[in-house]
Parts: sequence; C-alpha cells; structure tokens
Amino acid sequence: MPDDEADFSSPSGRVLERLGEAECMALLANGGVGRLVFTSRYGPTALPVMYKIDGESLVLGTWDRVFDEDLRTGIEHADYHVAVEADQMDPQAREGWAVLARGAAHHLDTEAERAPIIGAGLEPWIGEVPAHFIRVTPTTIFGVRVRQA
Amino acid sequence: MPDDEADFSSPSGRVLERLGEAECMALLANGGVGRLVFTSRYGPTALPVMYKIDGESLVLGTWDRVFDEDLRTGIEHADYHVAVEADQMDPQAREGWAVLARGAAHHLDTEAERAPIIGAGLEPWIGEVPAHFIRVTPTTIFGVRVRQA
Repeated sequence: MPDDEADFSSPSGRVLERLGEAECMALLANGGVGRLVFTSRYGPTALPVMYKIDGESLVLGTWDRVFDEDLRTGIEHADYHVAVEADQMDPQAREGWAVLARGAAHHLDTEAERAPIIGAGLEPWIGEVPAHFIRVTPTTIFGVRVRQA
Repeated sequence: MPDDEADFSSPSGRVLERLGEAECMALLANGGVGRLVFTSRYGPTALPVMYKIDGESLVLGTWDRVFDEDLRTGIEHADYHVAVEADQMDPQAREGWAVLARGAAHHLDTEAERAPIIGAGLEPWIGEVPAHFIRVTPTTIFGVRVRQA
C-alpha cells in the first residue's frame, strides 16, 4: 500500500455520506431483518421484523402480536405513523449503512391483500402465531453510509 | 438425530419466550451495535449507535450529530424519553433475541462525566465528528427470544 493511502484505515479516514432515496431502496432490496419503529403507549418502540420490498412499499411480517395492539388507530383508513429501520454496521471495519423509511402502517387484513404475500418468507417464526403483515409505503426515506474516504 | 427430534427444526418447533430483566441485561453485556429509538419532530426514529453496559445503565456513542438536535428538552434536568434496541436475529435458523430498554437520555456534557467513557470504544467512526455520549438508565426492559422448543 503506498504511503499516501496508509491513513485510509484510520478512523479519521472514514466519511459519512447521506444517501439518496434510490440508494436507500437499493440497500433495502434484498429484504431481511429490519425493525418496526413506532411510539406505543409505553414510549418509543423498535422491534425486529422481516421485511421485503414490494414495488415502492415495504411489506413486513410481524413475528409477535405485540404490534397488533399498538398499531391500529381504530379509525377506518387512518393508519398509524411508523418507521422501518434497517442497517448493516461493521464495528471491526468501522463501516456500514443505515436506512430509515417513514410512512403509514397499513394492515393487510383482507385475503386479497394477504394472498400475494403468503410464501414470501415473511411468516412468523413461531408456528402457532398467525401471520400478520403490514405494508408501509414510505413518505420519507433517510439513509447514511460510513465508508473509507 | 432420533426421529422424535426431527420436527424440532420445523418452524412450528420454535417457541417465543419473554425474557426477564436480568436475562436482557446479560444479552446486552457485550455491547456492540444497537439502535437509539425516539420520537423526533419528523416521527418515529431509530438509528444505529454503539453501546456498552456501565453498571445499571447503557452508555451510547452517537456516530452522527443528528441525535443532538432532537434529544434535548431545553429544560435543565428534564431528559428526553428514549429506548435502546438491540437484537440478534438469524433468519436461517429462525432464532434470535431482541431487547428494548426504555429510559431518559442523559447527555454526558461535562468532562467529569465524559472522562470514564473516553476509550471505551464508543467514539464515532468519523474522525472529524466530536464524540458525544448519552447515558440511558432503563426504567423498563422488555425482551423476547425465539428458539427451538
């Protein structure tokens, strides 16, 4: 490695960059484990969910009914405001990215809405727990990446 | 593997268990990447932080000043209510755990408060960004684990 690159591996060689929406969606494209973020009656809440991109929205499989109690307004067509967070941080390399997508939580309650999602790998890991899916169509997307300069 | 254990690896062989506070703190003991969760003026927010256990509290190193603007009430001794989330989910094995600890966000603004934290590995990854630390002493801790029955 030439001398003028030597400090690239030092912490000060890292840069923080804001990501555009397209980059954020590209980072989320593979789906996986994310976190559903919302304000419950007990305060700020984030718990893991499995998510997949479906067109311009994120579809989440909740693995616990804990979400169900908090994420309904009780008013038809009025959805709860939530965020979906996903990140991949590497403490060894001191690099990574994080994306936060905010939008309304639409519960997929009808069979017509649920049918296309069944088998997409979002089913809860507990066999006895019924599958419950939520669609979030982001209205704002925020993303950052830390990488070597 | 004996036949009577064969279905342990099926999704329905998983159980969800609530974790006690001591178990939650034990899972957080190694520190690492967690998420600081709060309600910003823009809505529900969660972004990665490095955290360590320090006695009965969690000390966070924020890697972006994004937190700074939102996490001060502007009133002395009145702290913002936040949560710290950490999880380790394995989609292949369909196992994992998640812990959510809620409490007040106390900013370590004085040198006396900051001194013991310097060098604890919580410094921001970006060299030019000044270190900023937050201490959260949990008032409630919620945790779950999914594992084979």
